Amino acid sequence: MKKNIFYAQSGGVTAVINATAAGVIETARGDKRAGKVYAGLNGITGALKEEILDTGRESAATIRALRHTPAGAFGTCRYRLRDAREDDAEYRRLFEVFAAHDIGCFLYNGGNDSQDTTLKISRMSAKYGHPMTCVGIPKTVDNDLAVTDNCPGFGSVAKYVATSVREAGLDVASMCATSTKIFVMEVMGRHAGWIAAAAGLASTRPDEAPHVILMPEVAFDEKRYYKRVDECVKRYGYCVVVVSEGAHYADGKFLAEAGGRDAFGHVQLGGAAPVLAQMTKAKLGHKYHWAVADYLQRSAGHITSKVDAEQAYALGAEAVRLALGGVSDVMATVVRKSDKPYRWTIGHTPLRRVANKEKKMPRRFISADGLHITAACRRYLAPLIIGESPPPYRDGLPQYARLAGVRVKPKLGEWKGR
Amino acid sequence: MKKNIFYAQSGGVTAVINATAAGVIETARGDKRAGKVYAGLNGITGALKEEILDTGRESAATIRALRHTPAGAFGTCRYRLRDAREDDAEYRRLFEVFAAHDIGCFLYNGGNDSQDTTLKISRMSAKYGHPMTCVGIPKTVDNDLAVTDNCPGFGSVAKYVATSVREAGLDVASMCATSTKIFVMEVMGRHAGWIAAAAGLASTRPDEAPHVILMPEVAFDEKRYYKRVDECVKRYGYCVVVVSEGAHYADGKFLAEAGGRDAFGHVQLGGAAPVLAQMTKAKLGHKYHWAVADYLQRSAGHITSKVDAEQAYALGAEAVRLALGGVSDVMATVVRKSDKPYRWTIGHTPLRRVANKEKKMPRRFISADGLHITAACRRYLAPLIIGESPPPYRDGLPQYARLAGVRVKPKLGEWKGR
Repeated sequence: MKKNIFYAQSGGVTAVINATAAGVIETARGDKRAGKVYAGLNGITGALKEEILDTGRESAATIRALRHTPAGAFGTCRYRLRDAREDDAEYRRLFEVFAAHDIGCFLYNGGNDSQDTTLKISRMSAKYGHPMTCVGIPKTVDNDLAVTDNCPGFGSVAKYVATSVREAGLDVASMCATSTKIFVMEVMGRHAGWIAAAAGLASTRPDEAPHVILMPEVAFDEKRYYKRVDECVKRYGYCVVVVSEGAHYADGKFLAEAGGRDAFGHVQLGGAAPVLAQMTKAKLGHKYHWAVADYLQRSAGHITSKVDAEQAYALGAEAVRLALGGVSDVMATVVRKSDKPYRWTIGHTPLRRVANKEKKMPRRFISADGLHITAACRRYLAPLIIGESPPPYRDGLPQYARLAGVRVKPKLGEWKGR
Repeated sequence: MKKNIFYAQSGGVTAVINATAAGVIETARGDKRAGKVYAGLNGITGALKEEILDTGRESAATIRALRHTPAGAFGTCRYRLRDAREDDAEYRRLFEVFAAHDIGCFLYNGGNDSQDTTLKISRMSAKYGHPMTCVGIPKTVDNDLAVTDNCPGFGSVAKYVATSVREAGLDVASMCATSTKIFVMEVMGRHAGWIAAAAGLASTRPDEAPHVILMPEVAFDEKRYYKRVDECVKRYGYCVVVVSEGAHYADGKFLAEAGGRDAFGHVQLGGAAPVLAQMTKAKLGHKYHWAVADYLQRSAGHITSKVDAEQAYALGAEAVRLALGGVSDVMATVVRKSDKPYRWTIGHTPLRRVANKEKKMPRRFISADGLHITAACRRYLAPLIIGESPPPYRDGLPQYARLAGVRVKPKLGEWKGR
C-alpha cells in the first residue's frame, strides 16, 4: 500500500529549506511507493490544527522554483509539544490526524529540538496505534547540529556574511583616512560562533576585513579586544569587527545586555553591534558605524551557496528514500569525504544522537588569541560557500515561488488545544 | 599640448563609483588629447598632501575590474575646504600641486557639496594663475542631486534594499503564525527618502512586504502608523516596515533620538529601527525583529544594478570628453528619455545648478497616507534597478580589484595644513 508522507518545516528559516522541500516532493513524485505528500501549514501546528496543504496541487514549475526560494514556503513554527507524561492531548490529536489522512511517513525539517520532536512522535506512534516511519531532515543556519558535517542553510548564510563583510570592509577602507575607522557587524549565533567564523573567509590577508571575530565560544576579554582593535587601526587605518549576537563576558552576561535602557526603561537586548561600537568609541575615540543583518542574512536567496542548495535538496530526497524504505528514527546527514577537492555524500544517523544536542566551534578552529579563525577552520568552512545559484530575476528583482497552497479537506473537528 | 587629468572620489562610497573611475581612465586612455590620469588618494586631501596615484601604472585588467568593484578604490574623504575669503592657504596649495603636475582638468566625483568644491576650484583657478577645466561627476546613494534624473550608486542600493526586503518579508511571513510579526528594516537617507521608497518596489501586491515605508519627507504620525501596522497584522498576519534613518516627528526630532540612553548615558542616535520596533511592541504587543543594513547596502557589489553600473561608467567617460573638449563648470547628468521602454542618455548642467542643492521625494511619489509609494514613484524607480552585473567569484566569494597604487613622486614640500 502506498504511504502518504507528511512533511513540515520547523524553527527559523533558511535560504535553502525550500530546496529540501523540493527534494522531498520531487523524489516522492518519482517513487511508486509514495502516496501523496502533505505539508503541514506552519510546521507541526498544521498537523494539530489539521491545516494541511496538498503538495500534489502544486505545479512542477512551482516545486522546481522552491529550489531557489528562501524562507519557509509552507510556513514554519516555534512550537514545543507538551510533555506527553503530563498531558498527551497533543500527541493523541496528532495521531488522529495522521490516521485520518493515512499518513505513514513523518518527515520533519528542523534543528535539534525538531529532531527531538521527530523522535518522540516516532516512539509514540506505535503506542497510539498508528505506527509511522519518522525521518528528520537537518536545517539550521546556526550549523550546530551534531553528527552531520554541516547543516543546510549554514553555507548560504556563511556566503552572505563573508561577502557582506568583504564589501563593507572595502567601504570602510575607502573612507578611514577622514571618517569611519571602526565597523561592527552583528551576525546570528546565540550559542555557537559558526556564522561569525564564516565571516573570516572574507580575509585572505591580515590587512583585510574582518580583523576581529567575537564568538560565543570565547568569553569576551575587553582588554585583549581593545588592544587588537587599536593595533589594527594603527596598522591598517581601520578595523572591522564581526560579533555573534551571543557574544558574552566570562560571567555569561551578553554584550548586548550592556546596552543600557531603551526608550521604555527596559534593559535593551539584541544589539551587540551598537553596544560594542559605542564601547569602542568610548575607549579608543574612533568614529564608528555598525550593522545588524538579522533576517537579511538567513533569507538571502540572491546569494545562496550552490553546494548548500544541492545538499539541502539531496537531504530531502534521501529522507524520502529512507522513509519509504522503512528506515525510521534517523536524521539524514551530510558526510564529508574530503576537503580538497571537496567531496560529500548523504548518510544518516539515529535521531537520539542529534536530538537536543548542540555542536559548538571546536577550540582548534579558533585562533590562540580568541579573536579570529585558524587555518583548520578555513579548511572546514571554505567548501561550504562554493558556487553560485542565483534565482531568476524579473524587473530587476529575484522571482520566488508562490504556492497555490490548496488545503486538504479536514476530516476531524476543530482543534481546541492551546 | 596634452592635458593631465586629476580625478578624485569624494564623500560616502557606492557600489558603482569605481565604475565611474573606470569610465574616466579607459576613456582618457583612448583619447589622444589626454595626458596622464592622476587620482587623488582619499579625495581632495590627496591633492593637498600631494598624495597622487598614477593610474597609468594600473593594468588594463585592473581598471576593467573597477567596473564591478564597490567602494572607493582610490580612497575618498569627508573634507570641506576652508572658505577662501577667510583663509586661502588650501586653495593656494591646491594650485601649486596642480601646476607642479601639469594638471589641466579637474574631475571630482561626489555629491552636492563636492559639486560646490568643483565650482569653487574652477572659479579660483584663473585667479591663482592656473586655469583648469573643471567637471563634476555625480555620485550618491541618496539620489538627492538636482537636475540629473538619478544619481549613480542609487540604483544599486535600491536593488539591494528591494531585494533584501522581499527576502526578509518571506522570512517573516513564514514564521508569523507563532513568532515574529513585526520586522523593521532601517535604510540610509538622512534628509531624502529615496532609498526607503525603493524598498517599495519589492511589493507587487498589498499583502507583500514592505507594508509601511517611513520617509523623512513626511513627519512621523504615531497614531496613523500604529493603525496601519495593526491593520496589516490583522489582515496579513505580519507587517514589514522600512524606515529611513532620517525619519522624524513633526517637530524635527529624529525617531532614532527617542532611543533613550546608551551604556554611557549618552542619547543614542542612529538606530531608528530598534527604537521603532520597541515602540511598536510596547503599543501593539507583537514580537519583533529589526535590521540595520548600514554600509552593507551601499557597498553591495554582488547585487549591483546593471543600469546603474552602465550609467556610472558613461558619466565618467562623458566627463573626460567634456573636460578635454574645454567644457568647464558643468556636471555630467543622466537624462531620461522615456520610462517604458527605459531610455536614457548623458547630458550636462552648470555646476551652479547642482552645488549644495538637495532633491527630495516629490509629494506625488508618496501615497496619500504618507506610508507608501505611488504608481508614479514606481514608474520613476523601476528602470533604475534593472539588470544584473554580478562580479566574478572565486572560492565562493566576489573578487574585487586591488590597485597597485603607485604614487607620483612629490615635487613640493610636505603640506602642513590642518
